[in-house]
Order: sequence, then C-alpha cells, then structure tokens
Amino acid sequence: MDSITLNILGLIAGAITSIGFIPQLIRGYRTKKLDDVSYYMPTLLAVGMSLWFGYGILSSAIPIIVANVFGMGCCVSLIILKRLYSP
Amino acid sequence: MDSITLNILGLIAGAITSIGFIPQLIRGYRTKKLDDVSYYMPTLLAVGMSLWFGYGILSSAIPIIVANVFGMGCCVSLIILKRLYSP
Repeated sequence: MDSITLNILGLIAGAITSIGFIPQLIRGYRTKKLDDVSYYMPTLLAVGMSLWFGYGILSSAIPIIVANVFGMGCCVSLIILKRLYSP
Repeated sequence: MDSITLNILGLIAGAITSIGFIPQLIRGYRTKKLDDVSYYMPTLLAVGMSLWFGYGILSSAIPIIVANVFGMGCCVSLIILKRLYSP
C-alpha cells in the first residue's frame, strides 16, 4: 500500500468523522436545546483531538492533522451552542 | 522523535478521545433521555472510525487501531442507548 493511497483512505476517514459532528450541531441549532448532551464529551474530545493534532504533526500524517483541526472546531462549536441554549 | 514516544503520545490522545464518549453514555444512562443527541453523529463517527481502523492497520499504527476500536464500541453503545430511551 503506497503512501498516497493510505493518505486518501485517511482523508476519507477524517472527512467522515469530521462531518459526524455537523448533524449534532444542526440539530442543536434547530431545536435550540442541548440538554441531553454532556459538556464533558466535546471538551474531552477537543483535548484528545489537540493531542492527535500533535501526533499528526510529529508523524507528518496530513489526514490526521486536517481531521483533528476540523474536529476541534466542531467540538468548540458544540460547547458554545450548549452554553448558549442549555447552560 | 522516536516511534515509542510517538506511540505513547498517540495512545494518550486515543485514550482521551475514547473516554470522551463515556460521560455522554453515563448521562444518557442516568437520565434515560437522549432526545437532543442526533442519531447521525454516532453513526457517522462509527463509519469514520472503522475507516480509521483500516488506516491504522495499513500504517501499523497501534494507537490509531486501539482508539478507534474502543471509539466504535462507544458509538454503537450510544446508538443502542438512544434507541432504547429516545427512539
């Protein structure tokens, strides 16, 4: 398996895990309610993703870097939405 | 940066992103309510994590394999809990 194919697989994987948070953000934005979502989930995920970001930098793995930067943005957005609607 | 240090960083990152779902599972189990959680989030994440799992296998990255197997388990649990409590 060459590194280009591997990077493409990683980018597809990263794209799917990244867009995974979008429906949750849309649902929260539409219903203006995030009571059942735990604060700890996006907080821990954002911390973990920042470490994955470091791992991606150190191992020069572009898909890991891209997916985790996007993921961190989604987690921070979810925290802000929950703070606004269901603090 | 040697590969052992890199693997340790990855395992810490993977441990944190994996336990990130635990508070959500506990909250859902306690409140018996997951109305505000979108089905699409754990579903898309589980699909993406299965691809990350393949990426981990192909690039022989143990932390990526471990974190994503655990993460898939958490996502499937969240889907089951939501199906039970807030279908």
